[in-house]
Amino acid sequence: MFKRWNKSIKKLEIKKKTTIKDIGDLLGLTPSAVSKALNNHPRISDKTKKAVQDAAIKLQYQPNFLSSALRKGKSNMVGLIVPRINTNYYSSVIENIEDVLNENGYNVIMAQTNESYNKECKSIDNLLNIQVDGIIASIANETVSFDYYQKIKEKGVPLVLFDRGENDLDVDYIGIDDYNCSHLIVAHLAGQNYKKIAHITGYSHTRIFKNRIRGFRDAMQKFDLPIQENSIIECNLQVEDGRRIMKALLNQEKRPDAIYAASDNAALGALEVLLEEGIQVPEEMAIVGFGNEPFSTIIKPQISTINQFNAEIGKQAALAFLERIKNPEKKVSLNKIILDSELMIRSSSYRKL
Amino acid sequence: MFKRWNKSIKKLEIKKKTTIKDIGDLLGLTPSAVSKALNNHPRISDKTKKAVQDAAIKLQYQPNFLSSALRKGKSNMVGLIVPRINTNYYSSVIENIEDVLNENGYNVIMAQTNESYNKECKSIDNLLNIQVDGIIASIANETVSFDYYQKIKEKGVPLVLFDRGENDLDVDYIGIDDYNCSHLIVAHLAGQNYKKIAHITGYSHTRIFKNRIRGFRDAMQKFDLPIQENSIIECNLQVEDGRRIMKALLNQEKRPDAIYAASDNAALGALEVLLEEGIQVPEEMAIVGFGNEPFSTIIKPQISTINQFNAEIGKQAALAFLERIKNPEKKVSLNKIILDSELMIRSSSYRKL
Repeated sequence: MFKRWNKSIKKLEIKKKTTIKDIGDLLGLTPSAVSKALNNHPRISDKTKKAVQDAAIKLQYQPNFLSSALRKGKSNMVGLIVPRINTNYYSSVIENIEDVLNENGYNVIMAQTNESYNKECKSIDNLLNIQVDGIIASIANETVSFDYYQKIKEKGVPLVLFDRGENDLDVDYIGIDDYNCSHLIVAHLAGQNYKKIAHITGYSHTRIFKNRIRGFRDAMQKFDLPIQENSIIECNLQVEDGRRIMKALLNQEKRPDAIYAASDNAALGALEVLLEEGIQVPEEMAIVGFGNEPFSTIIKPQISTINQFNAEIGKQAALAFLERIKNPEKKVSLNKIILDSELMIRSSSYRKL
Repeated sequence: MFKRWNKSIKKLEIKKKTTIKDIGDLLGLTPSAVSKALNNHPRISDKTKKAVQDAAIKLQYQPNFLSSALRKGKSNMVGLIVPRINTNYYSSVIENIEDVLNENGYNVIMAQTNESYNKECKSIDNLLNIQVDGIIASIANETVSFDYYQKIKEKGVPLVLFDRGENDLDVDYIGIDDYNCSHLIVAHLAGQNYKKIAHITGYSHTRIFKNRIRGFRDAMQKFDLPIQENSIIECNLQVEDGRRIMKALLNQEKRPDAIYAASDNAALGALEVLLEEGIQVPEEMAIVGFGNEPFSTIIKPQISTINQFNAEIGKQAALAFLERIKNPEKKVSLNKIILDSELMIRSSSYRKL
């Protein structure tokens, strides 16, 4: 039965992907018999099983988990879509998502959008195509339509959003109270007697930034501080955005005396410009960032910032996915988890009045 | 022929994954006819094509690109395996790989190993399972066997290694001249009259660290500097490793007067300990790092370091993959690209003698 072995083996070895048909051809078995043998089916003799196993090893057969995934509707892969991987916030959320999912037998496959809507759409398509069991995502800054996220929902693939979510999508969401964070910052700056606060922020079509701006406006009003409309500036929140906007703010007629930046990167860019210009921080101008990136304590002066408890956000996002996947039919009520965050007051905004 | 449409549509809509069989069932067509219609086959009438298209849209049918990928042997996805995503080095290499590959119609799917051999193996299996067209990787610190990388090669899937490569695998490789970098650093420190140089490095079973250690030893000999065996210390090169090892070095009988750390993170950890202990840098002790992470110019004193030209490494890695994929049969000679790198001399090691 297995006599063709020696003759065929050389020729088959140069083939790129060994299939169960190749193994069957080699041994004179049907693909179905090979499949049964590989799955230890009782109807297949031990001798045949052994021959199939040996051939599978020799031919470096790799079971196509994906095909079985398609049949079973399970790939044990979770797709993770993030705007950027190069911030401590995202890399630490990712690390914690991975820890929880790996413990539960899932592998994580990542895609980064670089804030681009186009890359986000392609990433979603890719992840759906490779049949991930779920998608955990934070929406790109430049995303203008949620059709692709809608598509994930419509496919019945569990979707969990964190940080940058969208109410209308009606899916599990883990985030912080952005509105309240703005209140914490403005209250602190007002208490330090800063009066002309500028807000460098993300695009207001993204919920978290909309909420931070709303919180900023309400808090300014609460503390009777005037809002200069041209000092609420939306951008991609990178270091170079902070630099560019800080330079523009310094050239304004009514120069601000405090900057609330919605990312530590933007705060760093702004701070660099102030140091270069010889402007005293915090004496002449205060800087507050957002995210508690490690560099915020490396630079002098250290940057005041919001600490978001990244680890907990990652864990809760993974747990929300696991709860969803374990209850595919049962209507589990949505997880809308809003975690506490804290203002870390450091020397960039503390003038010890 | 299409009369069942209105009755069936509601029931079908709740199904999770629409297949061509679902479309066929709805319209009374065979799956094969549906497939032909979707592929604009000349034997299928325009009327049927239109009906199939309408049904596909209504049922939110998503062509299984993966199945066609299996048939065509092409998925347009490239897998990227990196030890960590949270360093500027890796995120900037990744960004440049993505730029080149996206321009050429490929999408990038990432997996991070966190330096774990086990996670690396799983990631390779996953990427092979989802039939990526190629894999670009930097090997984990804790990897002890290259069997899984061998498996990629044996499957005929193009493999490009960067940064942490392995000679024996005989694949395209993009990196820097690590041996020479150690020479640059030791020559600089010797010129500044430092004599007792300790080397905090990665695990020597990884080629780049083996080469840095070899370069360190040879350069020390060249400059007639004694090597203390207990001051060449292998670790995972994170900030906490730098802190721990710096504390241990300070407790040694023969305290070093200069530290060459094989990562900026480890250099930062070491520097933090020195600043906490009130040891003057660079007067009493010098610190040199590796990688030119952005924080190396944020901290005071700024950290001297090796600049690796990350963007070029990423671009060359992507180009090596593209060259390989365009010449699947033709034996293209291996790309072994060793890029120049430069020592950035900053205040952490410059005592202006």
